[in-house]
Amino acid sequence: MTTEEQLKKDEYFMRRALDEAEAAYREGEIPVGAVVVCQGRIIARAHNLTETLNDVTAHAEMQAITIAANELGGKYLQDCTLYVTLEPCVMCAGALGWAQVKRIVYGCKDEKRGYLDYAPHALHPKATVTSGILAEECRNLLQQFFKSKR
Amino acid sequence: MTTEEQLKKDEYFMRRALDEAEAAYREGEIPVGAVVVCQGRIIARAHNLTETLNDVTAHAEMQAITIAANELGGKYLQDCTLYVTLEPCVMCAGALGWAQVKRIVYGCKDEKRGYLDYAPHALHPKATVTSGILAEECRNLLQQFFKSKR
Repeated sequence: MTTEEQLKKDEYFMRRALDEAEAAYREGEIPVGAVVVCQGRIIARAHNLTETLNDVTAHAEMQAITIAANELGGKYLQDCTLYVTLEPCVMCAGALGWAQVKRIVYGCKDEKRGYLDYAPHALHPKATVTSGILAEECRNLLQQFFKSKR
Repeated sequence: MTTEEQLKKDEYFMRRALDEAEAAYREGEIPVGAVVVCQGRIIARAHNLTETLNDVTAHAEMQAITIAANELGGKYLQDCTLYVTLEPCVMCAGALGWAQVKRIVYGCKDEKRGYLDYAPHALHPKATVTSGILAEECRNLLQQFFKSKR
């Protein structure tokens, strides 16, 4: 695959993660969405549900990992890519590490709680990371949400 | 409370976390257990279920946080102490941070995956940590488990 083809593919799946983030927004949740892709197919979609479930662990990535493992019938996701609209937090990065997710693609940086500032080695040592895919759209959605809550 | 009274109390609740770890052992799970205590009362008990649930996120602490939040009807656990037999990992420390758990008491150190080596600032800035409570018993149970699996 050329770099351009890869970027197109990444943007396609990030847009699906953004669809999830928009669903979160409509439900009054901080708009973060995630999808897990395995062999070119989306096997899990999830969005932040911390308010609805009254549970700080209900981040998009955490739910996506659980759903993907159920779908695959195994708890390791070595052949999967996780797309998420916002840089994962420490908790989610730790979970991605345990699940051995091979590739993580995120939209915009989390300036306050991103894993890179708190736990840069939390992911699996063989994991690769791509950042900045549709970053502006991912960030705009979050900013719009927080503005509406003021 | 005197230091001795506090230690006695901590040992009492750690023993309840050990009861959970032993339950995990009997189910073929890596034996780690946790309890959440609020105003002197246990409001959540949980043990590792990663194999049973086929889910890397099913650590004792994660489940204990979810159960405690349900019990209290609010997702923040500022007035709670979490007791866990093993030093939390990055994922669990991140979750404890989000839940704003005020005090964390753990048994033995996790030499390989403990949060202190990977994400020392993952907990809430106001959280206090006590380690080494019934550490030998907590460690022995883990060692016995891994020995039996060889």
